[in-house]
Amino acid sequence: MNPEQPPSSLSPLLASRRSPWSFDTDAEVGDRALAAVLEAARWSASSGNTQPWRFLVGRRGDAVFEKIYGTLRPRNRTWAGGAGVLLLTVYDLGGDRPLRHAQYDVGQAVAHLSIQAGHEGLVVHQMAGFDPDAAREAFGIPAGFVPCTVVALGHLGDPGSLPEDLAARQARPRTRRPLAETAFTEWGVPLDLDRPPG
Amino acid sequence: MNPEQPPSSLSPLLASRRSPWSFDTDAEVGDRALAAVLEAARWSASSGNTQPWRFLVGRRGDAVFEKIYGTLRPRNRTWAGGAGVLLLTVYDLGGDRPLRHAQYDVGQAVAHLSIQAGHEGLVVHQMAGFDPDAAREAFGIPAGFVPCTVVALGHLGDPGSLPEDLAARQARPRTRRPLAETAFTEWGVPLDLDRPPG
Repeated sequence: MNPEQPPSSLSPLLASRRSPWSFDTDAEVGDRALAAVLEAARWSASSGNTQPWRFLVGRRGDAVFEKIYGTLRPRNRTWAGGAGVLLLTVYDLGGDRPLRHAQYDVGQAVAHLSIQAGHEGLVVHQMAGFDPDAAREAFGIPAGFVPCTVVALGHLGDPGSLPEDLAARQARPRTRRPLAETAFTEWGVPLDLDRPPG
Repeated sequence: MNPEQPPSSLSPLLASRRSPWSFDTDAEVGDRALAAVLEAARWSASSGNTQPWRFLVGRRGDAVFEKIYGTLRPRNRTWAGGAGVLLLTVYDLGGDRPLRHAQYDVGQAVAHLSIQAGHEGLVVHQMAGFDPDAAREAFGIPAGFVPCTVVALGHLGDPGSLPEDLAARQARPRTRRPLAETAFTEWGVPLDLDRPPG
């Protein structure tokens, strides 16, 4: 995968999104911005409008934040404490009517949240590296609901405060698998597109 | 759930997004726009940058479109044939290193695709209602990959051409579960936010 830039055809909100490790440990996420990113998640699409997402929301310095932070893998604890907000995402299994696309729908909701975060001048870094059992215990999450990801939300900070290897990773250009290995007309056969440069 | 509008704080691309049934059966999705929405998906976030998504892409009138259309539940065949493009989304199970968040990541990629579609003046309607086994068979999708959703992409059309019940549904205001039942500080305890109106 060669480093490259997202094409100029992308909406600036999509093109500029990335997942940094460096958060401004002094800046706070205001109520208005926090409400807006949660509303963005809330208004996203879901299978049959089942809205299988729930969020536990902590702000740096409060007990909810500490509890979410405490479920993170050690590696993520080296940087995620700087975020203004930590969100634990949870999905509904649907009980007697299983929600086969619940995880997909939560992914969509968090994507909308991330894009609204960009609109607010904030950044997001999602993590799979946490202990779901510890999260269930910490928040009394009932059977039938599944802890899914932790989302760090806040203001971009100075990468100079990061562990050296993370600072190096953050400075690296982004990479993606080529479109020819992603979009097909038959399995493995690239979609043929007349693509203008840029 | 009371009908309401997304708040004015949302990015217009997020606030205006919805999942219509009526597509313009004459309009085509150009190569440039199709490349842009696929690039949006490609540049979305994923767990460890594993990019577990693949897309089978058909355009109205071609054999790929017909094959995807043929996997849809009868209900979805009443409207989805009008789309300019049908995409089948597929995720990678990860083999020996299982990708626990593959479905979540595909949801994110399709959310980015949908938002870029809005940026292009196009609309998207995602479907869980299709036959994954038939899709696997039709495209030779190998074991280890899972057909996930079908995405209709195109230009918004006149709802007058829809079956009566779908036209009525499309005219109805959107609804969502209240934020107080979605964002918590402890399970079931609403997050308290000072929210300005709008």
